[in-house]
Amino acid sequence: MIRRRVAAEPHQEIGTGRLEAFSDGILAVLITITAFELRSPDGPGFHALGQRLPEVLVYILSFTFLGIYWNNHHHLLRAATRINATVMWANLLLLFWLSLIPVLTEWVARYYRSSWPAASYGIVALASAISFIALMRAIIRADVPNSLVARAIGDDRKGKVSIVLYSAGVGFAFVSPWIAYGCYASVSILWFVPDRRLA
Amino acid sequence: MIRRRVAAEPHQEIGTGRLEAFSDGILAVLITITAFELRSPDGPGFHALGQRLPEVLVYILSFTFLGIYWNNHHHLLRAATRINATVMWANLLLLFWLSLIPVLTEWVARYYRSSWPAASYGIVALASAISFIALMRAIIRADVPNSLVARAIGDDRKGKVSIVLYSAGVGFAFVSPWIAYGCYASVSILWFVPDRRLA
Amino acid sequence: MIRRRVAAEPHQEIGTGRLEAFSDGILAVLITITAFELRSPDGPGFHALGQRLPEVLVYILSFTFLGIYWNNHHHLLRAATRINATVMWANLLLLFWLSLIPVLTEWVARYYRSSWPAASYGIVALASAISFIALMRAIIRADVPNSLVARAIGDDRKGKVSIVLYSAGVGFAFVSPWIAYGCYASVSILWFVPDRRLA
Amino acid sequence: MIRRRVAAEPHQEIGTGRLEAFSDGILAVLITITAFELRSPDGPGFHALGQRLPEVLVYILSFTFLGIYWNNHHHLLRAATRINATVMWANLLLLFWLSLIPVLTEWVARYYRSSWPAASYGIVALASAISFIALMRAIIRADVPNSLVARAIGDDRKGKVSIVLYSAGVGFAFVSPWIAYGCYASVSILWFVPDRRLA
Repeated sequence: MIRRRVAAEPHQEIGTGRLEAFSDGILAVLITITAFELRSPDGPGFHALGQRLPEVLVYILSFTFLGIYWNNHHHLLRAATRINATVMWANLLLLFWLSLIPVLTEWVARYYRSSWPAASYGIVALASAISFIALMRAIIRADVPNSLVARAIGDDRKGKVSIVLYSAGVGFAFVSPWIAYGCYASVSILWFVPDRRLA
Repeated sequence: MIRRRVAAEPHQEIGTGRLEAFSDGILAVLITITAFELRSPDGPGFHALGQRLPEVLVYILSFTFLGIYWNNHHHLLRAATRINATVMWANLLLLFWLSLIPVLTEWVARYYRSSWPAASYGIVALASAISFIALMRAIIRADVPNSLVARAIGDDRKGKVSIVLYSAGVGFAFVSPWIAYGCYASVSILWFVPDRRLA
Repeated sequence: MIRRRVAAEPHQEIGTGRLEAFSDGILAVLITITAFELRSPDGPGFHALGQRLPEVLVYILSFTFLGIYWNNHHHLLRAATRINATVMWANLLLLFWLSLIPVLTEWVARYYRSSWPAASYGIVALASAISFIALMRAIIRADVPNSLVARAIGDDRKGKVSIVLYSAGVGFAFVSPWIAYGCYASVSILWFVPDRRLA
Repeated sequence: MIRRRVAAEPHQEIGTGRLEAFSDGILAVLITITAFELRSPDGPGFHALGQRLPEVLVYILSFTFLGIYWNNHHHLLRAATRINATVMWANLLLLFWLSLIPVLTEWVARYYRSSWPAASYGIVALASAISFIALMRAIIRADVPNSLVARAIGDDRKGKVSIVLYSAGVGFAFVSPWIAYGCYASVSILWFVPDRRLA
């Protein structure tokens, strides 16, 4: 409320409220649409249900992935006090990469033994991670010097480890997609704990 | 508003506002997406419309089921004053189970005379009910001792009856799916009355 | 804001904020999902585009229909100060009927020359209109005597005319679906003007 | 908040809050649904992925297009203080045109070498731009004389250039769809910079 009113007065700054609401809306729909891509089993029996297991596992990975971004995104924007056009570009770029997750989830679910789907999933995850770092930096630059965000983020070790793990996953996808899935799942476990830096 | 500002200051607590907005967003989209899974009748006549009757009945069950969770979830979070990482895990777990309802609705609609779809629906309903209890307990633990939530929930008789009814439904699905549907519908009727404990 | 805080204190009343947010969410998604049911033309040319004309016309009807409900629903809830369990039942019932609009839009679009799709559309529109009146009455009963809502609604002439027109549409659908569409479109024109009673 | 309360008292004006929330909801879902129309590649290999390139490019165009409207729409409504029935009509008309973007994206993606899909996309973009101008004018008329909005918008050069570029795109689509896509992308670049007039 306060942020919003303050933001409405000066000419260079924009409140974070609408950015949060819009991003939250997109993330909530992306999660639900990924669920919607799940196909109901092709028969009434247990066997048909079992055939959907890989699909459900990939869905769990994507659900966790998007849930974590929602969580970290919210933490980040709560700490921010000012945003500008660069922040909005960076945020839209992040949302763009995240919006490719549902279709990639479907591709991986259909061809989970192949290298290219696994690698593509990792590339989009990597692009999302880099966009998130870009968004973080844009917010720090837009903010007052030595702000809460800047001090709280510190050296961003988790962000760096994620990028290493996603890159490794993309490479290993061509050895075995299972190693790639292991890398991606590790990042999810790593990030799931809410970020104390901005808590 | 007040909750939010209070929550932004201390380091261990997080406001409930964003959790509510995000969960509401997902629940609203889940309900709508279940409606979207309804296929339009395969012909212009009354007979084609009649063939969609089982689908519409299963849809009513799922619509009520999700509507009740929305209602109870909101009551629960309104009573809560503090949340932590465990609450967020528990909430995400609940949303995960609920997100499987649309695809199961489609499966039950297609094979409503078979045991496995009816049993699977019950298993996901059971998992949702258990997750809701876990969320309730996590919120009580995160909250101050002897809080409004803790006192209000009391012995949670409805929660226990639901679990018994869903478990019975899963078992009876292998005798006759119709008994299972009866069990699930009974839980819906039981829960529909808004929870006086947290009203 | 004020309403919310007031509502959080007493035990029998519930704030209208969450009801509004949830209903708005569902209505926004219903409109978009109706748009999503539009199929892209089956070829690259103008002829293929022209073949989609009936579909687009039915879409316009449904878009207006849902847009009007969103508008009236919002006006109604803004005037309301207290809600109870009956209001929530009535609201959920209204949302249930509205949630059938996307699938009926698709059916009408596919068989727009047939009577049953046109009649079914009218029946759901009629059920929505009756649910809206039920919601209005439930809100008046939940509210203080001689409240703003009660005085503002007055004799609800528009609501009565709508019910007559929808009923006529359902009947005439079996003479010619085109008369039915005319009836439904008339109701839309009638309601589109925002309701001065609650403005 | 202040706007809302002020708006709730007089009889002719309506707050902008609900208009913003509803429009934001629809825009967020439209963006996500456009992403959902992306089909997963029809095979596990790189070749199958490459075949989806045109689809992804059209998706980027539509994502940017909708993102810009969200941005400008928000800027516009923040500057507005009063709205009336005409504003609501104009807003609903804008949302109607924007809601056709997902299905047109799919059509262009499937037949990107043909003139009609490219031209239709431009016609809807043109109709959206004209609706946005109509909305802007309706807001100025509804507002106090010589308001912030009126002064801020000034001569609206960007709006006029957009209309010229979209019209050119529609015409050139029949020479080569690629020139049309170039025109549409130019408008996106032009508008992406947040509107300083209303910042």
